Amino acid sequence: MKAEIITIGDEILIGQTVDTNSAWIANKLNLIGVDIIRITSISDKKDEIFKALDNAKQIADLILITGGLGPTDDDITKTSLAEYFNTKLVQNKEVLKHVEQFVIKRKAWMNERNIRQADVPESCKIIRNKIGTAPGMWFEQEGCIIISMPGVPFEMKEMMTESIIPELKKMDSDLHIIHKIVLTQGWPESKLAEVLETWESNLPDVISLAYLPSPGLIKLRLTAKGDNQKLLENILKEQVGELERIIPDLICGYDSDKLEEVVGKLLRKNNKTISTAESCTGGNIAHLITSISGSSEYFLGGVVAYSNEIKENVLSVSKRNIVNYGAVSKQVVEEMAKGVRKLYKTDFAIATSGIAGPSGGTEEKPVGTTWIAVSDNSKVISKKYVFGNHRGRNIQSASLTALNMLQKLILEKEI
Amino acid sequence: MKAEIITIGDEILIGQTVDTNSAWIANKLNLIGVDIIRITSISDKKDEIFKALDNAKQIADLILITGGLGPTDDDITKTSLAEYFNTKLVQNKEVLKHVEQFVIKRKAWMNERNIRQADVPESCKIIRNKIGTAPGMWFEQEGCIIISMPGVPFEMKEMMTESIIPELKKMDSDLHIIHKIVLTQGWPESKLAEVLETWESNLPDVISLAYLPSPGLIKLRLTAKGDNQKLLENILKEQVGELERIIPDLICGYDSDKLEEVVGKLLRKNNKTISTAESCTGGNIAHLITSISGSSEYFLGGVVAYSNEIKENVLSVSKRNIVNYGAVSKQVVEEMAKGVRKLYKTDFAIATSGIAGPSGGTEEKPVGTTWIAVSDNSKVISKKYVFGNHRGRNIQSASLTALNMLQKLILEKEI
Repeated sequence: MKAEIITIGDEILIGQTVDTNSAWIANKLNLIGVDIIRITSISDKKDEIFKALDNAKQIADLILITGGLGPTDDDITKTSLAEYFNTKLVQNKEVLKHVEQFVIKRKAWMNERNIRQADVPESCKIIRNKIGTAPGMWFEQEGCIIISMPGVPFEMKEMMTESIIPELKKMDSDLHIIHKIVLTQGWPESKLAEVLETWESNLPDVISLAYLPSPGLIKLRLTAKGDNQKLLENILKEQVGELERIIPDLICGYDSDKLEEVVGKLLRKNNKTISTAESCTGGNIAHLITSISGSSEYFLGGVVAYSNEIKENVLSVSKRNIVNYGAVSKQVVEEMAKGVRKLYKTDFAIATSGIAGPSGGTEEKPVGTTWIAVSDNSKVISKKYVFGNHRGRNIQSASLTALNMLQKLILEKEI
Repeated sequence: MKAEIITIGDEILIGQTVDTNSAWIANKLNLIGVDIIRITSISDKKDEIFKALDNAKQIADLILITGGLGPTDDDITKTSLAEYFNTKLVQNKEVLKHVEQFVIKRKAWMNERNIRQADVPESCKIIRNKIGTAPGMWFEQEGCIIISMPGVPFEMKEMMTESIIPELKKMDSDLHIIHKIVLTQGWPESKLAEVLETWESNLPDVISLAYLPSPGLIKLRLTAKGDNQKLLENILKEQVGELERIIPDLICGYDSDKLEEVVGKLLRKNNKTISTAESCTGGNIAHLITSISGSSEYFLGGVVAYSNEIKENVLSVSKRNIVNYGAVSKQVVEEMAKGVRKLYKTDFAIATSGIAGPSGGTEEKPVGTTWIAVSDNSKVISKKYVFGNHRGRNIQSASLTALNMLQKLILEKEI
């Protein structure tokens, strides 16, 4: 199946909004074997919508449209589609009931605009919008499927996940596509690619590999395509097993895992607690940990010790070590980890001290130099890293590296 | 001038990369009076590039292309453009010299791929790439300008800012476009729009207004367009002054200011220091403050006090207050602010305690309920807010609200 995505909205064309919907949709469709031929963003104008549909029908048998379904006057996608498909708008009782319930729940009143949301083109199939008021629409014309969805990302995503993707999958029930994502932490892409070269070139034809890099983390996505689901699952499992043998120390999660979530689950499972003592990461590790709902069960708190006085007074780091070795040193970061673990009475602790940049580097300790320590009740393990020159990326890389060191400590793996 | 943006790259069509280049370019062009008619993303295929150019020429007199200029085999934009414009590739001595210097600086060697980067279509004007090896290209054909840039965002941005925008501006030297952005914090968009309605409807015709909302912050962008620059500047200044009279307490910065930067500058100017005591924001305020380079001059550190024990033991919050009023209360958040200010010996302090959600809410204190306190050496001021249901947005909104309260305290404004 070949598809085009059309996003409608002036806010995209004036650069006010980054179109993140298209990438999300493209990714999901790609995963079920649909090829995206083109992505087009146009303004809220009937002529533009008509022209875009005419163009899309020439190259695609599936057209996905987002945007322009809201209740205000500049939302013209629905009326334009009705005109394009030469059909009229009729009130849909079910949609009306849904809109009413939705409005009442929010302690508001039905008005003309709300009622109009229940008017839908007669010739289309309605796609339920469980979390909003504008329904989606599914048209078919001359072998081409045209689907219209709201532009609000979480409404669009719900509609895609719950209704559209299952429906599209049914159409090509012989083709099976299975994915497995392996999260790696610790090596840059180039080094990883080098070590995996032989493995990659020997992958069976039904499997393809993609590197998805982000600061501090690289995801490997394995995709298996074919007609025998059971067989594909086995091949995929075998190759993931192979990966686990080649880079056992780099793998830190699977699929949609976030590292802070993986670590959180481990702590919860083992009924253990954690605290943080952050210098260069400036609170970002605590922020990552607490971005996970329920983290209060295992995260007791942290100290952001930016100044040396706080390292000394709050975390009990010895002045002598700071003077002799500097704040960015093995000695200091280990004392920070011990200090916070004792102060907060937790099972584990993480500590960071480094030069985030862009200034503050020296010949001996260039920008990006970072000491990270993790500790439990019997030991402290620390390691030095040299990240890059970009402050934001250094902070993120150091934070994820620290979380991964903690994971290894909990799992009693070598750090 | 009417423009189309074309981004080339398979990584966009499979949803691996969000196309952020287009929004950035659209925003910049919009600011110099260019209308973006369409944004199109296509794959790295010659036929697709030809088709996209044919389509674009029908609606635009300016076409901006990004992507496909790298040194690897799948980068085919340059050869495709040479063929499209019926011209041949010739080696450009200046570009070759630049590539050589670039490669040597990185302690690498020139190879065939590098040398090929200096081959450029004979009929185009070269746009210098100061921070990369692939030059930009400026073609003109039948009154249409076609510009090709690298897809690497920071190379594209440098080229746009330093070469392309100044060049395009010259073409319409009679038109002046000036912008002023006013940052507001504290009110939702709907409330802000209501209060500004009269002012907005009385704006002079040469001025247009855009609301740019993000969690915890709304930017108001005023744009003045006309042929008399001096006059436009005066009108803009007058209207910003008017805004300052209508919403004095909401304005927290101008233009590209970030709130954490504004607060940082204020602290530095007054030679004051700050510390943070965070519960619901979980380290995010410290993270925002330390994302600014040089923040170690005024930020001494923070305490993330997720558990009540840490509020008591580290921040000296009284157990009685926690038992009587709960951790999310005026009494506790004020004690947290006082506690961290004393512990860290800083001039100012910020404290937060709230229910970030999605769980943990009660009838009396629903999810989003947040107490924030700011303190100096003579007083503590606290306020209750009720944000929304989304954990991430609640954390960000509470963090920015806290920073703005601090700004007001420093400026001796009413909170």
